[in-house]
Amino acid sequence: MPADERIYVGSKPILAYVTAVVTALSKSDSVSVMARGRAISTAVDVVEVTKRSFLTDIIVDGIDIGTERLGEAGAERNVSTISIHLSKPKA
Amino acid sequence: MPADERIYVGSKPILAYVTAVVTALSKSDSVSVMARGRAISTAVDVVEVTKRSFLTDIIVDGIDIGTERLGEAGAERNVSTISIHLSKPKA
Repeated sequence: MPADERIYVGSKPILAYVTAVVTALSKSDSVSVMARGRAISTAVDVVEVTKRSFLTDIIVDGIDIGTERLGEAGAERNVSTISIHLSKPKA
Repeated sequence: MPADERIYVGSKPILAYVTAVVTALSKSDSVSVMARGRAISTAVDVVEVTKRSFLTDIIVDGIDIGTERLGEAGAERNVSTISIHLSKPKA
């Protein structure tokens, strides 16, 4: 099985990312759902909808939060980040 | 020391919640920062600003996400939730 896949959540409809998570977990044992700034809430929605309606036995292995510095030199700003690590249950 | 305190993040300015977290951790060894829906992104910002600018040695013990059903019977909707558990370093 290939290693950890990553899905970056942005401003598309939630179901676009849910589909990406389901597809990734059909090919890989684990996937990380990542987001920055306002999309952090959407990333949590993506994981919750996936768990509730599609892959009910999915495991949340862990959640990391952090800060990234974005923007041009002299106009940098801090943006919060999240990565939610998901895996399939061991058979 | 009193047990776990809880801070609910809503739509006030981030620094209002940062102040609440700093105050709570002066009285207690641990605090949970909770939020629902769009406020989830703000909750992550609150923790990151607290860690970056106020209590640099704070520990993120764990992060839980979940779903709550809100609203009147017949018009219920699912809302995602987060709780971020913080504690002071062991002296």
